[in-house]
Amino acid sequence: MPRKLVEEQLIQFLKDDVGQGDATSSAIIPSDLTVTAEVVAKEQGIVAGVKEATILIQAMDLKVKVYIDDGMQVKDKQVIMQITGDAQTILTVERTLLNLLSRMCGIATTTHKLTEKLKAVNSSAIIAATRKTAPGLLYFDKKAVAIGGGDPHRLHLEDMLLIKDNHIAIIGDPARAVKLAKENTSFSKKIEVEITNATDILRVAKAGADIIMLDNFTPEEVNKAAEILKKTELPHKVLLEVSGGINSETLLDYAQAKVDIISIGALTHSVKALDLSLEVNKK
Amino acid sequence: MPRKLVEEQLIQFLKDDVGQGDATSSAIIPSDLTVTAEVVAKEQGIVAGVKEATILIQAMDLKVKVYIDDGMQVKDKQVIMQITGDAQTILTVERTLLNLLSRMCGIATTTHKLTEKLKAVNSSAIIAATRKTAPGLLYFDKKAVAIGGGDPHRLHLEDMLLIKDNHIAIIGDPARAVKLAKENTSFSKKIEVEITNATDILRVAKAGADIIMLDNFTPEEVNKAAEILKKTELPHKVLLEVSGGINSETLLDYAQAKVDIISIGALTHSVKALDLSLEVNKK
Amino acid sequence: MPRKLVEEQLIQFLKDDVGQGDATSSAIIPSDLTVTAEVVAKEQGIVAGVKEATILIQAMDLKVKVYIDDGMQVKDKQVIMQITGDAQTILTVERTLLNLLSRMCGIATTTHKLTEKLKAVNSSAIIAATRKTAPGLLYFDKKAVAIGGGDPHRLHLEDMLLIKDNHIAIIGDPARAVKLAKENTSFSKKIEVEITNATDILRVAKAGADIIMLDNFTPEEVNKAAEILKKTELPHKVLLEVSGGINSETLLDYAQAKVDIISIGALTHSVKALDLSLEVNKK
Amino acid sequence: MPRKLVEEQLIQFLKDDVGQGDATSSAIIPSDLTVTAEVVAKEQGIVAGVKEATILIQAMDLKVKVYIDDGMQVKDKQVIMQITGDAQTILTVERTLLNLLSRMCGIATTTHKLTEKLKAVNSSAIIAATRKTAPGLLYFDKKAVAIGGGDPHRLHLEDMLLIKDNHIAIIGDPARAVKLAKENTSFSKKIEVEITNATDILRVAKAGADIIMLDNFTPEEVNKAAEILKKTELPHKVLLEVSGGINSETLLDYAQAKVDIISIGALTHSVKALDLSLEVNKK
Amino acid sequence: MPRKLVEEQLIQFLKDDVGQGDATSSAIIPSDLTVTAEVVAKEQGIVAGVKEATILIQAMDLKVKVYIDDGMQVKDKQVIMQITGDAQTILTVERTLLNLLSRMCGIATTTHKLTEKLKAVNSSAIIAATRKTAPGLLYFDKKAVAIGGGDPHRLHLEDMLLIKDNHIAIIGDPARAVKLAKENTSFSKKIEVEITNATDILRVAKAGADIIMLDNFTPEEVNKAAEILKKTELPHKVLLEVSGGINSETLLDYAQAKVDIISIGALTHSVKALDLSLEVNKK
Amino acid sequence: MPRKLVEEQLIQFLKDDVGQGDATSSAIIPSDLTVTAEVVAKEQGIVAGVKEATILIQAMDLKVKVYIDDGMQVKDKQVIMQITGDAQTILTVERTLLNLLSRMCGIATTTHKLTEKLKAVNSSAIIAATRKTAPGLLYFDKKAVAIGGGDPHRLHLEDMLLIKDNHIAIIGDPARAVKLAKENTSFSKKIEVEITNATDILRVAKAGADIIMLDNFTPEEVNKAAEILKKTELPHKVLLEVSGGINSETLLDYAQAKVDIISIGALTHSVKALDLSLEVNKK
Repeated sequence: MPRKLVEEQLIQFLKDDVGQGDATSSAIIPSDLTVTAEVVAKEQGIVAGVKEATILIQAMDLKVKVYIDDGMQVKDKQVIMQITGDAQTILTVERTLLNLLSRMCGIATTTHKLTEKLKAVNSSAIIAATRKTAPGLLYFDKKAVAIGGGDPHRLHLEDMLLIKDNHIAIIGDPARAVKLAKENTSFSKKIEVEITNATDILRVAKAGADIIMLDNFTPEEVNKAAEILKKTELPHKVLLEVSGGINSETLLDYAQAKVDIISIGALTHSVKALDLSLEVNKK
Repeated sequence: MPRKLVEEQLIQFLKDDVGQGDATSSAIIPSDLTVTAEVVAKEQGIVAGVKEATILIQAMDLKVKVYIDDGMQVKDKQVIMQITGDAQTILTVERTLLNLLSRMCGIATTTHKLTEKLKAVNSSAIIAATRKTAPGLLYFDKKAVAIGGGDPHRLHLEDMLLIKDNHIAIIGDPARAVKLAKENTSFSKKIEVEITNATDILRVAKAGADIIMLDNFTPEEVNKAAEILKKTELPHKVLLEVSGGINSETLLDYAQAKVDIISIGALTHSVKALDLSLEVNKK
Repeated sequence: MPRKLVEEQLIQFLKDDVGQGDATSSAIIPSDLTVTAEVVAKEQGIVAGVKEATILIQAMDLKVKVYIDDGMQVKDKQVIMQITGDAQTILTVERTLLNLLSRMCGIATTTHKLTEKLKAVNSSAIIAATRKTAPGLLYFDKKAVAIGGGDPHRLHLEDMLLIKDNHIAIIGDPARAVKLAKENTSFSKKIEVEITNATDILRVAKAGADIIMLDNFTPEEVNKAAEILKKTELPHKVLLEVSGGINSETLLDYAQAKVDIISIGALTHSVKALDLSLEVNKK
Repeated sequence: MPRKLVEEQLIQFLKDDVGQGDATSSAIIPSDLTVTAEVVAKEQGIVAGVKEATILIQAMDLKVKVYIDDGMQVKDKQVIMQITGDAQTILTVERTLLNLLSRMCGIATTTHKLTEKLKAVNSSAIIAATRKTAPGLLYFDKKAVAIGGGDPHRLHLEDMLLIKDNHIAIIGDPARAVKLAKENTSFSKKIEVEITNATDILRVAKAGADIIMLDNFTPEEVNKAAEILKKTELPHKVLLEVSGGINSETLLDYAQAKVDIISIGALTHSVKALDLSLEVNKK
Repeated sequence: MPRKLVEEQLIQFLKDDVGQGDATSSAIIPSDLTVTAEVVAKEQGIVAGVKEATILIQAMDLKVKVYIDDGMQVKDKQVIMQITGDAQTILTVERTLLNLLSRMCGIATTTHKLTEKLKAVNSSAIIAATRKTAPGLLYFDKKAVAIGGGDPHRLHLEDMLLIKDNHIAIIGDPARAVKLAKENTSFSKKIEVEITNATDILRVAKAGADIIMLDNFTPEEVNKAAEILKKTELPHKVLLEVSGGINSETLLDYAQAKVDIISIGALTHSVKALDLSLEVNKK
Repeated sequence: MPRKLVEEQLIQFLKDDVGQGDATSSAIIPSDLTVTAEVVAKEQGIVAGVKEATILIQAMDLKVKVYIDDGMQVKDKQVIMQITGDAQTILTVERTLLNLLSRMCGIATTTHKLTEKLKAVNSSAIIAATRKTAPGLLYFDKKAVAIGGGDPHRLHLEDMLLIKDNHIAIIGDPARAVKLAKENTSFSKKIEVEITNATDILRVAKAGADIIMLDNFTPEEVNKAAEILKKTELPHKVLLEVSGGINSETLLDYAQAKVDIISIGALTHSVKALDLSLEVNKK
C-alpha cells in the first residue's frame, strides 16, 4: 500500500486516540524540548509493524532508527526502534504507536509459532488467516500474519469468491453455487467453496472450484476427501483448505493430513498483544 | 455518541472489509431475494455491541429484532438477534457485523468475569480499562468494558491528565509534575499521577493529584500506601488506582487491598472474541 | 457494493459538480414545487448505470420509476426513467446524473457491439476491460463493461497479479517473475504475465502463470502460441489473453484465433457518451 | 487550486485504483530498488496534466523532471517527463498517473485542434467547455480544455446562472426567468439564458441577460439573432453563445457567424485519450 | 446546496462539539425517553438558519415543527421551533443547534437593521457581505446575510475575480491588472477591481472592470468618482462598491452617495449572536 | 493537538474558502513569482493563532518568520509575522489566514481585558469560556480564550459532566441528577451541576458535585451560597462557577464574590475580530 494511504489510516488511528489534544503533555512538558525514546520488548516474539510505525513516526516529524525489522525475532528487553524529536509529540503518539505495534507483533508471533510447528514435521501445508479480524484492521492484521509466515488469504470480499455455508443455505447445492459463480465472475478471480460433506467434493471440483474448504472435518475425513480428489483427473488444479476451530493443539493432526491450507480465525480475532513499552530516556 | 456518528464509523469498517463489492454474493445470490438470518452464540458470555450492530444493520436497510440486549448473558446456541432483508446485503455485512459483535462480547465477557470475582469478595474496587485498545477501536473497546461492568477510564488524551513514567522521566519529580499540571490545566479536568515509589504518595497528593496510580505495587505495598494517605488530612478526595500486569489470578490479592480502581490493559489489548455465527435460514 | 458506499461516492460527484449551491435554481425556481422529469435517450444504445442513478436520485429524496433496466436496449426518444420530486433538487442533480448515466451507457453500448461481433462468429473469446479508466471511475467504468457483456478484469492492483512489461524490465525474465510471484503471493490470487515473445510461453506457463497476456501479437502469432501451449501437459489450466491496440476493425481477426480473452483499453479510456437528456414536464 | 487540495484529490484517485496494495509489485519487485522511468507519447498531441502529474509523483516521494510542459506540443516517441525513485512506488502509481495524463492530453489535443480551426479563419469566437464532464473530473476536464486554448465556462452550479430549457419549462417564459434571476441573485454573478427561438432574444437581453445561449440554431439563425441584438441599444454588453451538437465538421459554419462563444459538450463527455506509456528503464 | 451536502457539514459540526459521546446525558437521562423542547428567542431579531437547523434535527431522527421561518421577525420569548424525540439526542444536539442558529440569526438581524436604514432614506444601494467570515462558515454566514436582506457577494475565490490591493502591489497598475484578467479569464466570470485613487477609475472601467471597489473613499470622493464614470460612455455597465470601515454610524453618509454596493466586513467577522435558548418541557 | 490533525482542519477551512481555485491570482499573478508579505495589526490587542497560522502557511510550502508570539501584545501597525513564497499561493491563502487569526486575536484580546480587570482587584476568580462557540471552531475558540488568560472549560460533551437546566427539567431534582451521574460515570470525569436556587447547594454538594454552577445569581446570592457551602464539611473540594449574562460591566461585582469561576458565553459567541491585514511588499 503506498505510504500516503497508510499514513492517512494511521493518522485516523491517532485522531481516534488523541481527541483534540494531549492534555497532560501540553500542560507539563516544555514545548520545543527534544528527547530520545526507545520501543523496548518486554517479552520475546516476532517483530511486525515496523514499516507502519516508521510511517506514523515520520508523519509526526520525528526521527526513527530501526534496530529490529519486520519478521525478525526480538528478545525480552531488546530495543526495537529509537525515536528522537519533540517530547510532547512523542508522548502524544506513544499509545497509538504501541497499540499498533504490540498487536501486529502479537499476531506475527502466534503465526510464527504455528508455522514453526508445521515446519518441524515437514508439512507442506500453510497457515492462513481468515477475515475474522478486528473491525477496521484488516490490512494490518493480515500483514502481521504474512510477516509471521502465514498466508493472508483474501483481503476483501471483492478479491476472490468464497462460497460459504450461508450462500449454500440459499442456493441449495454447493456444486450449483460453483457453477453459477463460474458463469457470473471475472476470469481474474479464483473460486473457493466450503463443503461440510465429503460426498460433495468431486461435484464442486468438477464444477470448477479452485479451492475447496473442508469445514470442521476431522484429519481422517480430510485425508479421505483428498484421496477422492486425487483419484480424479481434473482440467485444473484444486487446493484443499481446512477450517473450523483448529488451534495450537490440534494443528499437528491436520498437518499430517493431505491439506494445502489450514486457516485459523483466532490468529486475528483473539490476539494476544506482545508486551512492548516506550521508554523516554531520562535527562 | 449520536447514531449518525456511530453509523459513519461502522460504514468505514464495512468499507475496509468489502472493498468495492462482494464478488461472491453478487455472482450467485439473486438480487431482490429476502431472507432471514440469526446471530447465534456458540458459547456462553455477556452480550455487547447490540446497539452498534443495530445501527449497522439498519444503515443497510435491513430489519433487526433483538432478543438479548447489551449487558445480558447469552448461552450457547441462543439467538442474539434476527435480521431480515435483502440476501446479498446480509451476506455482505455478515463478517463486519460478527467481527464487531464478537470482539465487544468478548471484552464484556472477560470484564464481567473479573467484576464478578470482585463482587464475590465484597470488594469495593472497580475494574477499569486502559487506553491499550486495538487501533481505531477505542470507543467500541471502552464501551464493551462498561457493558461488562467495568469503568472505561479516560477515553482520549484530552479527557483528563494522566502523568506517567515518561512524563516524570522528563520532569524529574512526580510532585512537581502534578503542581505544573494544576497550574496549566482547566479546572474541568481531573489529574492522575503514576508513582513507582510509595515515598512519593503524600507529596503528589498534597500537590493536588485527584487519583494516584500505583505502578507495579504488590498488594502489601498498596496497603501501606493507602495507610499513609489515610492518616493525612487533604483538602480533596484522592483515589488510588493499581496497574501493571494484574490478571485473573492476582486480581483477588489486589481486591483485598484498599484500592479504588484496578486497571487491566489485557481487557482490551488481548481480547478473546466470543464465538458467534450468522446463520441464514435455509429456504 | 453496498448501497451506502455507492451513495457516498455519488454524493462526492454531486459535490464536485454543485459547489456550494445551484445559483440558478435557488434564484428562480420556487421552493416546494413538485415536478416530474424524464431521462430520455437521444440515440439507440445499451442502458447502464440505472442502479447507481436510482441510488443518487433516492439519496436526494426524489422518487424514481425505471422503465428500462441495466443491460436492456434503449431506442432513440425512449424514456429510461421518470423522476418525481422537488423541482430545485431535480435541476441541481440533473447534470451529475446525466454525466454518470451517459458515460456508463456509452461504455456498455460499445462493449455490447463488440461482444455481439464475437457472438456472430461463434467465438468463445470474451471482451475484457483494462484498468485504463477515467481517474476515480474504476468501479463505474468496469461495471458498465460488465453490463455490456464484457469481463471487468481485475479491479484493483490488489486483486490479482499482473506482471507487465515494466516489471519484467526490472526482473529481467518473465518466467523468473512468475516464479517469484508464486512464492510471495497468497494462494488466493491468480497470476497473469505479459509476454512479448512467443518463445517465453512455455516457460511462464510452467512457472505457474494462470493467464498469459500476449502483447501486440498478430492473430497468427496468437495461434502459434496457443498451439505450443496446447501440446504441453500442465498441472493447471492456463488462459490466453491478447491485448494491445485491438479495435472494432481488427477484433474479428483475433476472434478467430484460439484466445480466451481480448482486452481493450479504449472501452474505458476513450468513451463515447450515449446522448441522453433530462426533460422536465412542462406545467 | 492550492497544491494540497489537488494532492488530496489525486490521492483519492490512487486509492480508488490501488485498493489496499499493489499485489504484483510487492511480490516481485525488491523494496528499496531505485529506477528511472519515462512517460512517453505514442502519438502527437498537446500536453496537459503535467502540473497534476507532478503533484502526484512528488506526493509519492518520487522525483520528476518535466521535458514538455502543459500546453506544448508533443510528438510520437517524445518523452514528456522522467520519474526517478522507488521502483515499487513507480509501478503502483503508473496507471493512475497515465489515466489522468492521457485523458487531460486527449482533451487538450481535441480542443487545440478546434481552436486552431477558428484561428485559421480569423474567427473571434472562442471554444468553450460545458459541464458534461466525467463524474468527479470537472476540475481536471475543464483545466485541460483551458490548456488546449478553450474557455472552461462555469465550473460549478454556484458560479454563474445559466437558465436552461428545464428552468424555462417551469417558469414558462425566458425573459421572466431572467428578470427573476436578476432580482434574486448577487450582483457578483453573470446571468446566461438559453433560448430556442430567435423571437425571445430582445426580451431576454432587455431583462438583463449577460449571455444568451442559442440552442440548436443554424448559423443563419445565429446571424439573424445577432443582427437583432446589434440594432438595439442595451445598457450592458451581451454575449452570444451557440450550443448543441456542434462538431469538428460544422464548427466552421458557426465560426463565420457573429457569435462569441461556441460550446461543445463532446470536448469532455466523449474524450479520446492520448496514447501515452510509462517505460521503466531496463537495468 | 442539496440537503445531503448541508447535512454532511452539520454532522461535522456536531462531531466537533460532541467528541465521542455526551457523558452527561448518557449517564443520567433514560434512553428511549421522548420529550418535547422549544427553541425560544431571548431577544428580538430576524430568524435565520431554520432550514439548516431542520436538516440537523431530522438527521438526528427527531421531529421538528417550525413556527417562525427564515427572514421573519421573532420577538423576545417567542418560540421559533419545537423539537420532539429522544431526550438524550435532543440534549446532545442542543448546543450545536443553538450555536448555528444564534450566529445566523445574529448576522441576519444586524444585516436587516442596516438594510432598513437604507430603505428609510430610499437608497438604492445594497448591503453586501465580504469573505471576512469565521473560518469554515462561509456558506452559513453568507446565507444569513442574504436572509437579512443583504447581498452575499462572491462566495469562493473561484466565483468571480476581485483584484485587490495586494494584487496591484504585484502588478503595479490596476488597469493593467484588469486587462490581464480580461485576457486570462473565462467570459463567465465578472471582474472587480479595488482602487484607492479616483484618478484610476476611468482607466479600470475602460479596461473592462464590471465592478469598481472604492477603498476607504469618503462619501464625497465616492460621488466625484461616480460623476467621472457617468460622464463617460462605456460599452458595458459598471457598478460601484464602497468598502472599508463602514459601520452603522457612517452608513447613511454613503447611502446618499451614488454607489451601488456597500460591503461591510463586520457583518460576518464580528457577529453578535442572537440570544436563543432550548427549553425542554418539564414533565 | 498534533500538527497533522490541526493541518487537516486548516486545509478544510481553506477548501471552504477557495472552492476549486483562486480565479483572480491564477489569471493575473505570474506563477513562480516569489514575494514577501506581512501580517500587520491595525489596532492594539493580544496575539493568538500564530501556531495555527504557522501550520497553515507551512502546509502551503511558504516560509514564515514570527515576530509576535501567542499571548503577546501587539500594537497598531506592528508586524506579527512575515511570509515569503509563491505569490499566487500567498494571495490564495490570505483570507483564510486572516479570518482565523483575527478571530483568535479578537477572542484573546477580550479575554485578556477581563482577566486584567480581575487581577486589578486581586480576585482569585478565573474567567472561563463556555461551549457557545461558532460551529466547528470549538478548538480554536477555546484555545484563544486560554491564550488570553482564561480557562477553556470542558471542550466536548464527553470531557466532563455538566448537568444543566434541561437535564434537571427531565430528572426533576438536581441532587438526584448528581447522584445518578456519580453512579453511572467513570471516576475519571468531574461532575458539575447547575442550580438556580441557593437552597439546592448543600444537597448537590453532598451528592458529590465537583463544581456547582450558580445560574443567574446576583453577587449577593453568590456570596450567600458560598457561605452555606463553607460552613459544611464535605469529603471533597467543591468549586463555584457563576454564569449567565455576565459582561464587562458586571464582572467586578462578581469578582468580589467568593466564586472560583466566572464563565462568559459572549467570549466566543459574540466575537469582535481584531483588525489585521496582509500586506504584500511592493516590488
